[in-house]
Amino acid sequence: MTPLDYLHAHEQDILDALIAFVQLPSVSTDPAYREGIARAAQWAAEQIRLAGPFDVEIIPTAGHPLVYGEWLGAPGKPTVIVYGHYDVQPPEPLDKWQTPPFAPEVREGRLYGRGVSDDKGPMLIPIKVAQAFFETRGGLPINVRFLFEGEEEVGSAHLETFIRDNPMRLAADFVLSADGAMWRIDEPSITVACRGMVGLEFALTTAAKDLHSGRYGGGINNALHAMAALVASLHAPDGRVAVTGFYDAVEAVSPDERAAMTTLGFDEMAWLAQIGGQAAFGEPGYTTLERLWTRPTLEVNGMWGGYQGAGSKTVIPAEAYAKITCRLVPHQHPDDIAEKLIAHLEAHRPPGAQLSITRDGYGALPYRIDPTHMGLKVAEAALIDVYGKKPLYVRMGGTIPVSEFFKRRLNLDTVFFSFSTADEDFHAPNEFFRLHRLREGLEAWARYWERLSDV
Amino acid sequence: MTPLDYLHAHEQDILDALIAFVQLPSVSTDPAYREGIARAAQWAAEQIRLAGPFDVEIIPTAGHPLVYGEWLGAPGKPTVIVYGHYDVQPPEPLDKWQTPPFAPEVREGRLYGRGVSDDKGPMLIPIKVAQAFFETRGGLPINVRFLFEGEEEVGSAHLETFIRDNPMRLAADFVLSADGAMWRIDEPSITVACRGMVGLEFALTTAAKDLHSGRYGGGINNALHAMAALVASLHAPDGRVAVTGFYDAVEAVSPDERAAMTTLGFDEMAWLAQIGGQAAFGEPGYTTLERLWTRPTLEVNGMWGGYQGAGSKTVIPAEAYAKITCRLVPHQHPDDIAEKLIAHLEAHRPPGAQLSITRDGYGALPYRIDPTHMGLKVAEAALIDVYGKKPLYVRMGGTIPVSEFFKRRLNLDTVFFSFSTADEDFHAPNEFFRLHRLREGLEAWARYWERLSDV
Repeated sequence: MTPLDYLHAHEQDILDALIAFVQLPSVSTDPAYREGIARAAQWAAEQIRLAGPFDVEIIPTAGHPLVYGEWLGAPGKPTVIVYGHYDVQPPEPLDKWQTPPFAPEVREGRLYGRGVSDDKGPMLIPIKVAQAFFETRGGLPINVRFLFEGEEEVGSAHLETFIRDNPMRLAADFVLSADGAMWRIDEPSITVACRGMVGLEFALTTAAKDLHSGRYGGGINNALHAMAALVASLHAPDGRVAVTGFYDAVEAVSPDERAAMTTLGFDEMAWLAQIGGQAAFGEPGYTTLERLWTRPTLEVNGMWGGYQGAGSKTVIPAEAYAKITCRLVPHQHPDDIAEKLIAHLEAHRPPGAQLSITRDGYGALPYRIDPTHMGLKVAEAALIDVYGKKPLYVRMGGTIPVSEFFKRRLNLDTVFFSFSTADEDFHAPNEFFRLHRLREGLEAWARYWERLSDV
Repeated sequence: MTPLDYLHAHEQDILDALIAFVQLPSVSTDPAYREGIARAAQWAAEQIRLAGPFDVEIIPTAGHPLVYGEWLGAPGKPTVIVYGHYDVQPPEPLDKWQTPPFAPEVREGRLYGRGVSDDKGPMLIPIKVAQAFFETRGGLPINVRFLFEGEEEVGSAHLETFIRDNPMRLAADFVLSADGAMWRIDEPSITVACRGMVGLEFALTTAAKDLHSGRYGGGINNALHAMAALVASLHAPDGRVAVTGFYDAVEAVSPDERAAMTTLGFDEMAWLAQIGGQAAFGEPGYTTLERLWTRPTLEVNGMWGGYQGAGSKTVIPAEAYAKITCRLVPHQHPDDIAEKLIAHLEAHRPPGAQLSITRDGYGALPYRIDPTHMGLKVAEAALIDVYGKKPLYVRMGGTIPVSEFFKRRLNLDTVFFSFSTADEDFHAPNEFFRLHRLREGLEAWARYWERLSDV
């Protein structure tokens, strides 16, 4: 029996394991889910032990624990760090889920549940591939260090400390990431860049308490009016970010790369239809795909104040809140952008309002890999094996901070080799993972390790 | 024993009754409180029966019931409709209350609880005054029709229908309202005008679901950016309402009235200190008091969308919501202002966003009474009896729709004779009612009815 035969024969077991994994509510941003995080870390460690004779350790951090497992029994062969994360986004808004987020259900060839695509399905694949090699061959074709974290959705801060402090333990040729995503379902792709991130929250206060809109209306500023004006000031009406200096460090996209992106055949109408959007919108002078991949953004992720219940409440709200994150592109730095954002908010503070700003721990530099990297060539060959066609080289609008940490701290590049797809509603209700991607991913990872062994 | 002696001797009983009344959670705007509403209506009816031989009836409406009680045993004497309301505002935000909103507590001469000042304390006063007259004299000096409603906080719509359909049952000389408020604690005052009201809610949608801010950021408009821009467009930066035609019908305040308002000695710094405001703010060209009493306003009462939990969530919200109410001044009409608001929202709909608007049932015309009205003169005399000084004639920034209904449907004027005070945090957490106002109100109502009997 070959590893591929083994994987084929155990498809249902692997799906059952993924369902068990998704049932553990490992939301990293919210302290209410602390127990779900701990159980998911234990579960992942147990799965690695089950796969083969790995040295497995749950490594505590100042935040959520790391799960580490190494097998270095292939001397002379390459060593890869296999990265993934067991934490998930919050499930809210709960009322938009067709089935509960932590009660995964298969419908029409898809498994639905929070974290199923980001990143529990993709992360389980290399563990099960390792199991297939051990069960059929008694060993792996390469050396593997599994490194799974529980803080990807909140900026990977403690993973960075671990990487900085453990260079020997993480000696490797490169990082092979189970996180990331194929950009669309109909073509395999390889990601060669991702955006960075910086975030902050702010509050505006205009009085010590909410006030009766009759008694006080016309007398003082309403915190929601102040918030609307301040948030509106962050963008020009055409969609360009209006924060002074925001675009200063941004590298112009080369005519060659722009031309290459045009040939990818991005179908804007299909893309809009898929998300239920009315019209594409954003910074003028760029195509939608150029904006998604190569331009920085400033998004308000939450904004609120006043009465949100049924009916009306004639109140002048005294407090209003907003959460912001920016996606950064090469040469932008999170600290520099945070400073510029704060300067903008302070300069545009509305009359009669107090402003308080909290920077998120959350910060990540943007990342790029040389498109001729050996690890990418192996990925290309493995994808041709599975899909019968040459993969596209694409950028990613999202952020995987760990890739930049590995580069900066250990000079290791990251090859993204995920089998989630960009349309699978991660970070939104009804997240799903396509079951055929699970099968394809298992085959592709097995082929990757075998091909890498022969490089 | 005189009625005043009786009231003095029963102060503690009356306070206990008020506490029992406030314990009934009669929030009219939220269907979750339906039972609290029903219990409060029954309680009020019972209190009227307890006061004396009134014909009492709980009158169902398409909304919350009316409580009616009449005693017409003083032939030849004036007849007044005594108006009040047993419904209250929602208690949210609950975490801002020092003690629970429906567990009233006396602290430092004040009773704290939702609805204690608006309007349960003031409404209980005339019931207890009636009881004092029946217990000591066996009858009232005038004819009284109690009419208490359960929908004041949601626009009094079904009371208007009842007034329209029952002109004979409501035959009276004028309305004496236990709702309203003294404008400040250090001087008695009589209200001669109040503002009207119109409200609506709207939603903006930019996609069929919330989207990952990395994958989609830069591609489509964010519903919160759209909402901020749309809400910001409602006001000019200087605080003036920017809706076309909003001020068209507004009558200019006469130089005489402006001069009279100046002599009232409004202390802006003290007013700001009391509400914890940084600075007064609003339409230029008017003093703060002029804006509060004589100018219309547009206030956003609630605005929300996206993630509001702990930590961050990197999402592009697909939906955003806002609730608006306007306070109207003489000659503005709710329908006309609603049309202008809707036209503004549609004209400023941001790119890529769908707009849906719901008009609140909520609408009320502004109201004024002739300052020489006999009922006001009796009020002035009764207030001089109690306070030893001549009351101020003031306007009110708030809205009591019923006054305009009585005027339009039955040509009856409304005399406001409430003993709540404008600073008692109605519509906000920690609403309170001063216990000395309860004593003063009981005396003043008893004196009012006696003086009215002699007119």
